[in-house]
Amino acid sequence: MNESLPYKYASKEFQPENTNIEIMDRVIGTSRFHVIAGPCAVESREQILESAWAVKEAGAAFLRGGAFKPRSSPYSFQGLGEEGLKYLAEAKEQTGLPVVTEVMDVRDVELVAYYADVIQIGARNMQNSFLLKEVSQLNKPVVLKRGQSATLEEWLMAAEYVLHGGNSKVILCERGIRTFENFTRNTLDLSAIPGVKMLSHLPAFVDPSHGTGRWELVAPMAKAALAAGADGLLIEVHPHPDQALSDGRQSLTYKNFEILMSELRNMCKVLGREMK
Amino acid sequence: MNESLPYKYASKEFQPENTNIEIMDRVIGTSRFHVIAGPCAVESREQILESAWAVKEAGAAFLRGGAFKPRSSPYSFQGLGEEGLKYLAEAKEQTGLPVVTEVMDVRDVELVAYYADVIQIGARNMQNSFLLKEVSQLNKPVVLKRGQSATLEEWLMAAEYVLHGGNSKVILCERGIRTFENFTRNTLDLSAIPGVKMLSHLPAFVDPSHGTGRWELVAPMAKAALAAGADGLLIEVHPHPDQALSDGRQSLTYKNFEILMSELRNMCKVLGREMK
Amino acid sequence: MNESLPYKYASKEFQPENTNIEIMDRVIGTSRFHVIAGPCAVESREQILESAWAVKEAGAAFLRGGAFKPRSSPYSFQGLGEEGLKYLAEAKEQTGLPVVTEVMDVRDVELVAYYADVIQIGARNMQNSFLLKEVSQLNKPVVLKRGQSATLEEWLMAAEYVLHGGNSKVILCERGIRTFENFTRNTLDLSAIPGVKMLSHLPAFVDPSHGTGRWELVAPMAKAALAAGADGLLIEVHPHPDQALSDGRQSLTYKNFEILMSELRNMCKVLGREMK
Amino acid sequence: MNESLPYKYASKEFQPENTNIEIMDRVIGTSRFHVIAGPCAVESREQILESAWAVKEAGAAFLRGGAFKPRSSPYSFQGLGEEGLKYLAEAKEQTGLPVVTEVMDVRDVELVAYYADVIQIGARNMQNSFLLKEVSQLNKPVVLKRGQSATLEEWLMAAEYVLHGGNSKVILCERGIRTFENFTRNTLDLSAIPGVKMLSHLPAFVDPSHGTGRWELVAPMAKAALAAGADGLLIEVHPHPDQALSDGRQSLTYKNFEILMSELRNMCKVLGREMK
Repeated sequence: MNESLPYKYASKEFQPENTNIEIMDRVIGTSRFHVIAGPCAVESREQILESAWAVKEAGAAFLRGGAFKPRSSPYSFQGLGEEGLKYLAEAKEQTGLPVVTEVMDVRDVELVAYYADVIQIGARNMQNSFLLKEVSQLNKPVVLKRGQSATLEEWLMAAEYVLHGGNSKVILCERGIRTFENFTRNTLDLSAIPGVKMLSHLPAFVDPSHGTGRWELVAPMAKAALAAGADGLLIEVHPHPDQALSDGRQSLTYKNFEILMSELRNMCKVLGREMK
Repeated sequence: MNESLPYKYASKEFQPENTNIEIMDRVIGTSRFHVIAGPCAVESREQILESAWAVKEAGAAFLRGGAFKPRSSPYSFQGLGEEGLKYLAEAKEQTGLPVVTEVMDVRDVELVAYYADVIQIGARNMQNSFLLKEVSQLNKPVVLKRGQSATLEEWLMAAEYVLHGGNSKVILCERGIRTFENFTRNTLDLSAIPGVKMLSHLPAFVDPSHGTGRWELVAPMAKAALAAGADGLLIEVHPHPDQALSDGRQSLTYKNFEILMSELRNMCKVLGREMK
Repeated sequence: MNESLPYKYASKEFQPENTNIEIMDRVIGTSRFHVIAGPCAVESREQILESAWAVKEAGAAFLRGGAFKPRSSPYSFQGLGEEGLKYLAEAKEQTGLPVVTEVMDVRDVELVAYYADVIQIGARNMQNSFLLKEVSQLNKPVVLKRGQSATLEEWLMAAEYVLHGGNSKVILCERGIRTFENFTRNTLDLSAIPGVKMLSHLPAFVDPSHGTGRWELVAPMAKAALAAGADGLLIEVHPHPDQALSDGRQSLTYKNFEILMSELRNMCKVLGREMK
Repeated sequence: MNESLPYKYASKEFQPENTNIEIMDRVIGTSRFHVIAGPCAVESREQILESAWAVKEAGAAFLRGGAFKPRSSPYSFQGLGEEGLKYLAEAKEQTGLPVVTEVMDVRDVELVAYYADVIQIGARNMQNSFLLKEVSQLNKPVVLKRGQSATLEEWLMAAEYVLHGGNSKVILCERGIRTFENFTRNTLDLSAIPGVKMLSHLPAFVDPSHGTGRWELVAPMAKAALAAGADGLLIEVHPHPDQALSDGRQSLTYKNFEILMSELRNMCKVLGREMK
């Protein structure tokens, strides 16, 4: 291990060329830009199926949806659990979209891995070393969200837990850091994208929904993320944002998501990127 | 539940009088000031036994020591695991000091609870709702450290998970928040002590070792914590701080710990507090 | 004044349509994207003249350069003062580029206004109400940088000082906020651009040079700023960044600036924007 | 200058022994603990005279009161200006309390210095190098508040501007830094006190009023500041906090100030400190 770096496998020195991660026929980490979209939480079979078709038609490459939800309050909706995972699997079967979903409990890793194509580690668990060690044993891609108060170095050390355990398929995801500013829910640190690309070979996504907490800011920040060099996006889309059981304030309607996708497609053309 | 508050059982409105927590013959949450001391990590049988006797002689009321260590890097010492728990139990048997130790993995809760008198939830797990739910099922006191970027409200909501699950023995512990200042490892937010006491009936400790990351600042901040109204302290003490496997930079020597304890004892006299 | 807002003239409710600011034949606040470029500090006549020609050729609309430099240390280069202003004026005469330069002292306002086309208020002076009141008396556009720890609301209240005093030509400029992350010099908060545009009619620029403190991140963040809806950019360009008397680490070479300008021009085409 | 330090005169290496600053018969920087108290702003002749007598009787060593007020909004009360300075001078004449008051504008330095015994540089002006240079020419003590987002190093560099200019009478004052926590107005960083004392020989005060923004937290944090080793305090006291023109929320009543002073006096006895 390079003496001056606290991580090895995650470093650009260990591997100068970009990591490419294949999921069905999608290859992340290339010039192709991938959008992962769907509701924050799986709320019902109808909701997730309808959302899946809507984001697919607009050009999303992956479906997202939470079956287990990390919530600050014990009184908030905690997710449908395995039932939610089954609805996600059904949505995948119908639409062909691979599924990205979060695992929070080490005891659920096997279960979630059975249903999901990509495992998400949320911001609150970025430094949960036991969970990182569990997913390091899987042969599944892992979206590793940046912790709310994690430096780039700490983020790459969390990735190192997964890489070191044997799973090389780590996708970093910037989702906003906590600062004094409270107009936004978090401060989306887009400079983290070119930043981690200076230090690492891992692909890096951006989640402008959690990153801003306001749907009005999602489209401008999504476009900014593409311009800053992100490999893709995670975007919350909900059939009826005002009725969402969680994060409705930051979810796009189908219509606004479609408009955004078309703008991103236009931008790809002049940025040497491709998109469905 | 009060409509304007996101937590119920943790609130002062639900319970105006202070929560008292009895552990052997110690009662936390009263005018008595309690110091929990010991090394960051249990490194060997000798180290923990010797440390236990040293902190006991200086007047500590509890022994601390980590058997499972949360580490940013997979290459750092991760703790001795169950072996460490056994050494802690032996130290308790010899010295009579009840043991405080951290649990990080939901699968270890039963094991840690078997050996420990007080379970610690570390800053990184403050919002690990699955772990909070597990310890909410125990009949053991829980030290709940404040997350590095948690507001007072989020901290109390984390406590609410434990209280709501049925365990009313929650001890809050301020251990520094992440800010722009990097002279210190964290910024110890002592105003959080009178702050949570305005909002809640739960006892509140301070950990000036993690809170500052520099042993030179531990004694002044420990005294400041007592003056600010804390119910007690968590302090790292190591036989040879320069050889510690973790956090040596912030550990007190026996000698400095003894001096600090004597200063705290003097302060108690004029502050209406008592200490062994 | 709207009871719920602490500012009036800066609000979208007071003036729904965007403010346009004319400087020579440039109109800021329209679909045209303007780049202000030049060295951090005016270091010599040769340096500023050469830089002016270089940035003009690459397509910059304005020349920037500091004659008075805000420095953390009294031992750092403090700027050439009036001599620097004269060199800027000469550069303007030669190239036709209007000049943007900072004023820091109320006693220098008249002097700086004599030479400059646009007055810059730096981040450290964003809440210097005496300086704001002085520039509010001018009939000159003011670039108002966001303070390092200023919320959007405080920034707009600083703008309100200028507007309220009678000068309606305020150009906001995001330049990074201070957070715990120190890979970058500051954390460039691009969400502030769509954010202030939700609240205000004032044009908003971005300074990715100070915002990141690393030249490698300037181009990606400049492009991201355009995509996020900024009205323009402030970019540091230096003939020999490694020899710069200040901020060399974050300055672009002529060559890299030229490449960036060409990329921005391409992006404008698909974003409904125009650029020289 | 020590190569590794950005400041010289402020460093402990340049001057190992503590700086003592004499003001009338008070000597700051010794074992004696000094309290500066009074209203945030001078509002009227009656208000400041009455306040002066009240804080004097409770044991304050200095009177504070703002004649020029730094306000975020142009619509807030900006202070009485020279009229306020005259009332302060009258209060001093009557009570014998030396006066501490803020200067914000370089053009007012001479005027303020004429009336004040100690000049205050507020947090917003900590990096106003022109103002620092002006007060460096005075033979008057300067209270230098820490900027809201200033590191200890930047704070000492600001002090260096004053020391380097020839004025060695600098009193540092911690008043809270901006963090994500908003239960308090700022996060009072008490570790800054033992921190700057590791690095510098300058005396260091604490302002728990601005540091917390809540009067309920002022007393606990004032006592904590004394315990942490502060040389003194700056405390806002107002005859009728609920009618104050500024900062009423954080001002103590006479009665609460008196109680606090008596508690501080008791603490001094066991901490090797003295107080009137």
